[in-house]
Amino acid sequence: MSGSETFERVAIIGIGLIGSSIARAIRAAGLAGHVACHDADSEIRARAVALDIVDSMHNTLAGAVEDADLIVVATPVGACGAVAQAMRDHLRPGAIVTDVGSVKGSVLKAMGPHTPEGVHLIPGHPVAGTEHSGPEAGFGELFQDRFAILTPPPGADEAAVARLSSLWRGMGSDVEIMDAEHHDRVLAITSHLPHLIAYTIVATAADLETELEAQPRDDDVVTTREVIKYSAGGFRDFTRIAASDPVMWRDVFLLNKDAVLEMLGRFSEDLTALQRAIRWDDGDALFELFTRTREIRRGVIEAGQAGRFQYTENGDSEDEA
Amino acid sequence: MSGSETFERVAIIGIGLIGSSIARAIRAAGLAGHVACHDADSEIRARAVALDIVDSMHNTLAGAVEDADLIVVATPVGACGAVAQAMRDHLRPGAIVTDVGSVKGSVLKAMGPHTPEGVHLIPGHPVAGTEHSGPEAGFGELFQDRFAILTPPPGADEAAVARLSSLWRGMGSDVEIMDAEHHDRVLAITSHLPHLIAYTIVATAADLETELEAQPRDDDVVTTREVIKYSAGGFRDFTRIAASDPVMWRDVFLLNKDAVLEMLGRFSEDLTALQRAIRWDDGDALFELFTRTREIRRGVIEAGQAGRFQYTENGDSEDEA
Repeated sequence: MSGSETFERVAIIGIGLIGSSIARAIRAAGLAGHVACHDADSEIRARAVALDIVDSMHNTLAGAVEDADLIVVATPVGACGAVAQAMRDHLRPGAIVTDVGSVKGSVLKAMGPHTPEGVHLIPGHPVAGTEHSGPEAGFGELFQDRFAILTPPPGADEAAVARLSSLWRGMGSDVEIMDAEHHDRVLAITSHLPHLIAYTIVATAADLETELEAQPRDDDVVTTREVIKYSAGGFRDFTRIAASDPVMWRDVFLLNKDAVLEMLGRFSEDLTALQRAIRWDDGDALFELFTRTREIRRGVIEAGQAGRFQYTENGDSEDEA
Repeated sequence: MSGSETFERVAIIGIGLIGSSIARAIRAAGLAGHVACHDADSEIRARAVALDIVDSMHNTLAGAVEDADLIVVATPVGACGAVAQAMRDHLRPGAIVTDVGSVKGSVLKAMGPHTPEGVHLIPGHPVAGTEHSGPEAGFGELFQDRFAILTPPPGADEAAVARLSSLWRGMGSDVEIMDAEHHDRVLAITSHLPHLIAYTIVATAADLETELEAQPRDDDVVTTREVIKYSAGGFRDFTRIAASDPVMWRDVFLLNKDAVLEMLGRFSEDLTALQRAIRWDDGDALFELFTRTREIRRGVIEAGQAGRFQYTENGDSEDEA
């Protein structure tokens, strides 16, 4: 290895939004000598090859991971266990295995038992993304000024953690280390619950009237067409979040069930309290709460996490999570 | 009047985000001969004068509305009735009175009884805005490619409706006419419920740990600082919405109570169903719902309402609603 190279050969398993962004970022910064790739879907493999973002594309998982000193599993979290099992006999001694899933406790549980002695499992999660999916949606700047959280199990090899951290820093991220359980609770409130709520409100709106009517009707029926038309009043921001990958999010909710249900319970209590304040005309309670929430926004802006992205004419976006 | 002038003298009552944006848009397009202004807050008046966005600033409501052929009430909706009462004896015959509130039924009820014979009350609502408040936050392009909804009461003067429509078109908006009750139901789902939910989740997160801790703790406690730090996972979009003006939104929820509570009821049912699917590991139900919501996003993008705004480094934004 020479220059900024952190790994000789990185294998990326799953070349969707995140996997393809990692491939691009590694290439752009020259962080690896070779980027190998496998995706279970042959059509996705072909699309990634056409994009020319990896050095070698492999029809088999074994072919991709062979001789790799870093394997990045970038599949939906529900698939991590099966991937670990399928590649276990093909891993090079001393290799580091990581992932990018939004849930970490379940990844440790699913991959740990299939990780051979002498291979370092260090689960990870870049807190970055967009609502778009597929290899074409990725871009090399996705991780810049975002956090990459690593959740090494107790007793993990410190040199391996340092090397993986160095890769993420090379892609522009700030690296944070925490334990998997804590990660899952933090993400339950900062990411999983927001997505769950966004999905729900969009579904609620979609159910208002399944027939898309050409004209607004001056009666009680609110049509889905009207919801879309007047979405600039706030709804549209939820539709963006609710356009995220369905498989990824199904897995997240099922695999972080306990923390999600707990945060959802707190949210439901708070929503019921607000509902009661509206019903009983308690303007003071509403005003007090709406003032308090402004502080949090200020904190987000001050922390540099308010976003720095750009919508184009057709509503595409960059650098969003 | 000459050229593109639609009104001789427009009086803007309340010079916050919306009022000041109207003043700027009218000036930029030369839609009125004179823009007069009054705000109940003397400090806001001084700030608006410093911005040089109106032709005359008046210490009294009466002074601003005198001789105006259009009065735009751009106060929080809860203040509309008092404004109508206070200005009733100072209105010029044939004048048009409109407003910009996010609730329309209550505006008709509050302002109607105080509108003199020969004056045309035509409530209105530009579906546009940002999370920022105050005269400095306004900009003339706010209404471009957004909808302005007018809710003229039955029997309203058609010429007056046409003239007000022409002003909004001059500011770049598409004008839609509907009845007040229907407006309030549409906005309950496209705007009011999204804001209510965003306020709630931000409050839920704020309550996790009131002490802002310097370091993340590897235990059960998730701190507010961590929520802010990792907000790029979805939460940050909610904080933006939840930074909107507290007085405005208190009034909206109290004055559109019935429609908001109904939509909230539907949302809560749907959320409970999703909660149950998570608890019982019903991955198929989650996948089906998450796939369906993607369609709505496509509709929003196709309707040109997905937004076309830009975040700057410090998280400010433009052209958002």
